[in-house]
Amino acid sequence: MTIALLTIGDEICIGQIVNTNAAWMAEACAKEGWRVLAHSVVGDELPNILNEFQRLLGLADAVLITGGLGPTHDDRTKTALVEFLHDTLVLHEPTLEHLRNLFKRLGRDLTERNAAQALLPGKCTVLQNDKGTAAGMWFTLSAGTMHNASKRDKIMVSMPGVPHEMKHLMQDRVIPRLRELSANDAVMRYTTLLTTGIAESTLADLIGDVEPILEGQELAFLPSPSGVKLRITVTAANRVSADALLERIEERIRARANKFIFGKDGDTYDAVVGALLAKRGLTVAVAESCTGGLLGATLTMKPGASAYFLGGVQCYSNDAKMRFVGVKPETLRLHGAVSEETARELAFGICERFQSDIGISVTGIAGPDGGTPEKPVGTIWVGIADKKSVEAHKYTVGGDRIVNRERAVAAALQLLFKKVSGV
Amino acid sequence: MTIALLTIGDEICIGQIVNTNAAWMAEACAKEGWRVLAHSVVGDELPNILNEFQRLLGLADAVLITGGLGPTHDDRTKTALVEFLHDTLVLHEPTLEHLRNLFKRLGRDLTERNAAQALLPGKCTVLQNDKGTAAGMWFTLSAGTMHNASKRDKIMVSMPGVPHEMKHLMQDRVIPRLRELSANDAVMRYTTLLTTGIAESTLADLIGDVEPILEGQELAFLPSPSGVKLRITVTAANRVSADALLERIEERIRARANKFIFGKDGDTYDAVVGALLAKRGLTVAVAESCTGGLLGATLTMKPGASAYFLGGVQCYSNDAKMRFVGVKPETLRLHGAVSEETARELAFGICERFQSDIGISVTGIAGPDGGTPEKPVGTIWVGIADKKSVEAHKYTVGGDRIVNRERAVAAALQLLFKKVSGV
Repeated sequence: MTIALLTIGDEICIGQIVNTNAAWMAEACAKEGWRVLAHSVVGDELPNILNEFQRLLGLADAVLITGGLGPTHDDRTKTALVEFLHDTLVLHEPTLEHLRNLFKRLGRDLTERNAAQALLPGKCTVLQNDKGTAAGMWFTLSAGTMHNASKRDKIMVSMPGVPHEMKHLMQDRVIPRLRELSANDAVMRYTTLLTTGIAESTLADLIGDVEPILEGQELAFLPSPSGVKLRITVTAANRVSADALLERIEERIRARANKFIFGKDGDTYDAVVGALLAKRGLTVAVAESCTGGLLGATLTMKPGASAYFLGGVQCYSNDAKMRFVGVKPETLRLHGAVSEETARELAFGICERFQSDIGISVTGIAGPDGGTPEKPVGTIWVGIADKKSVEAHKYTVGGDRIVNRERAVAAALQLLFKKVSGV
Repeated sequence: MTIALLTIGDEICIGQIVNTNAAWMAEACAKEGWRVLAHSVVGDELPNILNEFQRLLGLADAVLITGGLGPTHDDRTKTALVEFLHDTLVLHEPTLEHLRNLFKRLGRDLTERNAAQALLPGKCTVLQNDKGTAAGMWFTLSAGTMHNASKRDKIMVSMPGVPHEMKHLMQDRVIPRLRELSANDAVMRYTTLLTTGIAESTLADLIGDVEPILEGQELAFLPSPSGVKLRITVTAANRVSADALLERIEERIRARANKFIFGKDGDTYDAVVGALLAKRGLTVAVAESCTGGLLGATLTMKPGASAYFLGGVQCYSNDAKMRFVGVKPETLRLHGAVSEETARELAFGICERFQSDIGISVTGIAGPDGGTPEKPVGTIWVGIADKKSVEAHKYTVGGDRIVNRERAVAAALQLLFKKVSGV
């Protein structure tokens, strides 16, 4: 089963809203083993909408449309569908009844404009929307007809653009129906291995010749601030063979690069590190200079962080480094705030003050100002201490301020991971 | 000038990454007065990429392409461009030099794989990428040629998909060139004034009769969680007249409502608050419980934060609240960590310990666990203190953990803005 996504609406087209719907829908489809071939966004202009219906139907087995179903004059999707399919609007009694109940429950009058949302194309199967006023519409276009010259029936589905309404319709109405239609299809499935501490080209060299590993399947290298992601994509006759194939390929990649792989798929560094800390019963405290609190914010992103995160000090000023974490004045004077010595004293000091098992510190030059030839923008020191020892590592990252801070946090989590996992 | 956006990459197509690039680019183009007609996303398959080149060139004056420029085998954009334009790859010496310098600075060897990024299509104008290894490529397709049957030259630009590299190329290379090409076009431009602390209807009354202000142009009132936004939209024969018109209208609105306007367009609360603090010579310290450092991280997002941000304590545990910020044990015992009393003691305590002009605290139940009937998930207390006084405000927000923390930070920044601006 191949899928194309069409988003209709000026507000998306001109960038006032990020198209999170498309990502959510694409991921939901990919999880089912369907191939998403394209996303498309057009504004509220009829000719462009009609052109996209035609093009995407030529491309994919199912076209999933969101947006343009509201009650105002700039919502054109229904009009476009009726024109494209030579259909007419008819009153759909169950939808009118649903609207009446909904408005009653909200204590509002059902206006004529809202009641018109029960006028729906005669050829569609109506998908009741329990979460809102705009019904979903499912059209089956028979093979070999004017709009579908292919040999397989094609599907068009129209859903509202409100995210929670779209998700409801996808999960409860659309995906189950598509699943039935594709029960005997070949599937495409994927898994993503998350690496850290290795550059894209070095990783590619380490894995080496991919031909014998891949059995004709695909491997993609995806750089990200937290490390390079390796996405394995396989196509197989069914889900079971696909999963077996994925497992074999993953094993072969792990045989070559396992020590750089910290997790897979939806795993995040903070979650992996957090789970490890909780499992080992260890606690951590942070001393943050250039990250201003971002490391602590990241370590507390997942529920249950209070089991391992005690807290920390945002020691942005030198005064705070001395008074609240115990860095010696002469250390700052002799070596500066961005130095191995300061990173070590911060990590050790925070560990001691919070009586945590592990103390971790970040001090660096996030930029764009403050760099020197000796310590350019992007110089980061991360310190890590336990009750017996302390060490610090230097990183040189080359992005803008936001990226440098994210990389500093990623480096700190990486050190923490190494310490706790014993890698 | 009309624009189409093309994003290339399986990771976007299958929903692993949200297409934030497209929204950013669309907004940047709309700001210039150019009409964005379509966004399109395709995976890394050559035929689909080639089809989209052809289709989007038929649709718009300029096709802006991102993604698929990395050094590995799954990056196909350069191959696609060469094939589509019947071009060949040639070594671009300045890019090789740039790569050599970049790798030297990072202390890494320039591998053959990376050096291949200096092989670029002969027909393009190379756009140097100061932030990364993949150069931008600008192609001018003359009117009336095979790829461009129209009467106007068309533009194709290829940029890397890494957001900060794309933004750099757009801002410093692409937009200035497109601006030159469209200097004599009619434009629609807009600007948005951001207000806070005033209701929509009160603001409308304050601004009063808009007819004489607007010279026939448009003003929209857009309510949002951070305050009402005022969007001015003008249409004019060219950019210069449009900007003059925008400026006149903005001035007239400011004459009536200036004290409620905290910024415009892309301004964020943290940047505006930071600039205000710097201007007034005031310093701030934070005590963060449920946000774990996110408020400090937000206050230090912009360069120059050391002028006003002294630091803070991430007092995630009760022990940290007492030992490092001075909350009284009986306050925690009688009222709990999420209470007016604790928020006040945290704000006052952090102000005192850091000797800052202002202290601000956040304590709340971010969820999903820890809620009670009396204090449900989403209950947030924000405290704000100076050397003489302290107050705390309660917010009830109803999102998931991540959203609740973001809203807590937004509430804290708003209180800080009110205090510093005297609104």
